[in-house]
Amino acid sequence: MSRRAPFARWLDDTNDVTQTFLSAGQIPGLVNLAGGLPDPSTWPAPELADFAGRAVADHTQDALGYSPIDGLPDLRDRIAADYSRSDLRLTRDNVLITTGGMQGLELLGKVLLNSGDTIAAQSPAYLGAIDAWKPRTPQYRAMVLEQNGFDPHGSMTGAQFAYTVPNFSNPSGRLVPVDQRRALVAAAQATGCWLAEDDPYGHLYYDAAPLPRMLDLSATGAPVYDGQVIYLGTFSKMLAPGLRVGWVIAAPAVITATTTAKQGSDMFTSGLCQRIALQAMEQGVPDRILPGILDLYRARRDALCAAMATDLSDLFTWEVPTGGMFVWAVARDPSLDTDRLMKTGLDHGVCVSPSSVFDPLGRDRRAIRVNFTLNPPEVLAEGVRRLADATRMELTRAA
Amino acid sequence: MSRRAPFARWLDDTNDVTQTFLSAGQIPGLVNLAGGLPDPSTWPAPELADFAGRAVADHTQDALGYSPIDGLPDLRDRIAADYSRSDLRLTRDNVLITTGGMQGLELLGKVLLNSGDTIAAQSPAYLGAIDAWKPRTPQYRAMVLEQNGFDPHGSMTGAQFAYTVPNFSNPSGRLVPVDQRRALVAAAQATGCWLAEDDPYGHLYYDAAPLPRMLDLSATGAPVYDGQVIYLGTFSKMLAPGLRVGWVIAAPAVITATTTAKQGSDMFTSGLCQRIALQAMEQGVPDRILPGILDLYRARRDALCAAMATDLSDLFTWEVPTGGMFVWAVARDPSLDTDRLMKTGLDHGVCVSPSSVFDPLGRDRRAIRVNFTLNPPEVLAEGVRRLADATRMELTRAA
Repeated sequence: MSRRAPFARWLDDTNDVTQTFLSAGQIPGLVNLAGGLPDPSTWPAPELADFAGRAVADHTQDALGYSPIDGLPDLRDRIAADYSRSDLRLTRDNVLITTGGMQGLELLGKVLLNSGDTIAAQSPAYLGAIDAWKPRTPQYRAMVLEQNGFDPHGSMTGAQFAYTVPNFSNPSGRLVPVDQRRALVAAAQATGCWLAEDDPYGHLYYDAAPLPRMLDLSATGAPVYDGQVIYLGTFSKMLAPGLRVGWVIAAPAVITATTTAKQGSDMFTSGLCQRIALQAMEQGVPDRILPGILDLYRARRDALCAAMATDLSDLFTWEVPTGGMFVWAVARDPSLDTDRLMKTGLDHGVCVSPSSVFDPLGRDRRAIRVNFTLNPPEVLAEGVRRLADATRMELTRAA
Repeated sequence: MSRRAPFARWLDDTNDVTQTFLSAGQIPGLVNLAGGLPDPSTWPAPELADFAGRAVADHTQDALGYSPIDGLPDLRDRIAADYSRSDLRLTRDNVLITTGGMQGLELLGKVLLNSGDTIAAQSPAYLGAIDAWKPRTPQYRAMVLEQNGFDPHGSMTGAQFAYTVPNFSNPSGRLVPVDQRRALVAAAQATGCWLAEDDPYGHLYYDAAPLPRMLDLSATGAPVYDGQVIYLGTFSKMLAPGLRVGWVIAAPAVITATTTAKQGSDMFTSGLCQRIALQAMEQGVPDRILPGILDLYRARRDALCAAMATDLSDLFTWEVPTGGMFVWAVARDPSLDTDRLMKTGLDHGVCVSPSSVFDPLGRDRRAIRVNFTLNPPEVLAEGVRRLADATRMELTRAA
């Protein structure tokens, strides 16, 4: 037999970290601090079971048939209405339904990138976004928003789009302050660079009221929003990830282009899942369950940070995040290699995410991302103790 | 404001025909012969409603949580078992679950194509496949399988993969005979070109027993299938399209690569939809409803072809298909432009698909694709009468 036709070149440069996260849940006794998983107790399962059965029985064509590529009109209307403000006027023409938030990222890459085009990415950046764009073979320009002298205009000049997670960024947990949001929007408007606002954690504020979205700040009062921000939302953290329903909010021309791309990606998002999400919105389920989610995750954030203060403060530095799902911890000793620490951690029964996977260039090995939403306080504390042991072993080895 | 960053170049070359099909259902009184839609009466709605509710209630983690990227292990095992034969041994490592059959096509493009690589495509080719691969900017080589002297080996040499729909091809309705299936498999093995077998209509045989799949013909009795065929299946025509569940069956290395690509496309397919499909398989629903589907569609195929024989035989030539969903009709008068006929048809209250959209180069304007699964016999007959009127008007205009 001849040599087989080879796979595409972008596959030479991949990592298996997400797969490791998703399968780490199967290792008995492991404390998984690596993923970004919600606590299953937050899912409104009985209501969703009821909605699922009724969606098929009462809305059979929507649930089982071919749906419009851009989503069920009622769901698009509902999302448009939910995000509209006095000067931010949205219609269904501003909304595309996607198969989870991940597909929104994927479509962004398809629609905005020719090979070699530049993304100005908040650094460190979400691993899943980097994965989504690999087949488009982009160049990256790092935006370190907290750095003195950060220049949004210079960063965005010549880039196709800027990628940000303003609310409790994955992985850094950082909240982008409102002044900087304004500066990013102004730079996008001045340079013509699109500004992607990825917002899976936008409702997970534990200590204060939510800041205005860049989508809001970019509104000009036009009759139909036509601004520079491309906003990505998802039901994964608000209802349940298994529904795989997310959305893009953007100028109509962007919705048209992403709809064309979606046609060739998966044709349309399951109408059954869309109907369940719509019914949940109509009955106010996300608003009703949110306070319980905030109480649960706030207590876990506090428990993790208390345990870290006890066991890790001589080894790492970090800021206590005011929302989201993650603490970003930077090693005090620059000789610590967190790629190695991840593997040593697995031997000690704890899994964390190394910083290399959040760097498009794969170089940053000085930090870890620690999740606090999945596990109860006592498990978080045990995980932190194991992590401290693993870190000391790694440092001994490096010395 | 500066000029905005432009969209990716592949978007310059798109069509809105699929969107026209999907929205044509909304025009009152229109006879839609254009899409490839199933009759909703074939969906086992009450059972699926029950499965949907029970999936969330009894399998909450599977249905609502994050699932493995490659699919629920039980569903992968079930599909592997269903396709296994004495010399075709499949395990879950040969199976990836996809978000509808369309995503299988999309992942194939991501995994096998660098820009400018060649696809040897059965011609005419499925519109959705052409759409799925546009962002990868491939070259096409047309394989006209029914042409005298067709040379599979020459066609596949230097191509990354060959694309075929052996069972009742969309759009031509053609059944690829078993000798030619063998020749295609042999050429793939000799050249190293991958051989994609897209099989959404594989169970819709109205007049005879199914032919062996190329997947079967490429088996070598290896303990785990490692052949040259990449098989794509879907529940869309077997249960209901709204579930968006399909699958890829291939060599483990292909499954690994497509799984990496899927991670960046939509992370995973809705576990709820996977559980519903699994439950339906376990209870034998597809097998139980198939005879009714075959009876319904066979009668409609016969009704359409009888109406065409009455009203269109002086205008078009066609072969009666022995399965699938479509009749492919070629205009007798070479001056007829079927792109124009499609629009004239809409004015006459009938929608058909013009051949240009099934040609990667967009040149073929001499044929139409006519669907017979969606409408009852009397509506098909009325649609054909309108189509005859529209064709005569177009020919008068062209003369």
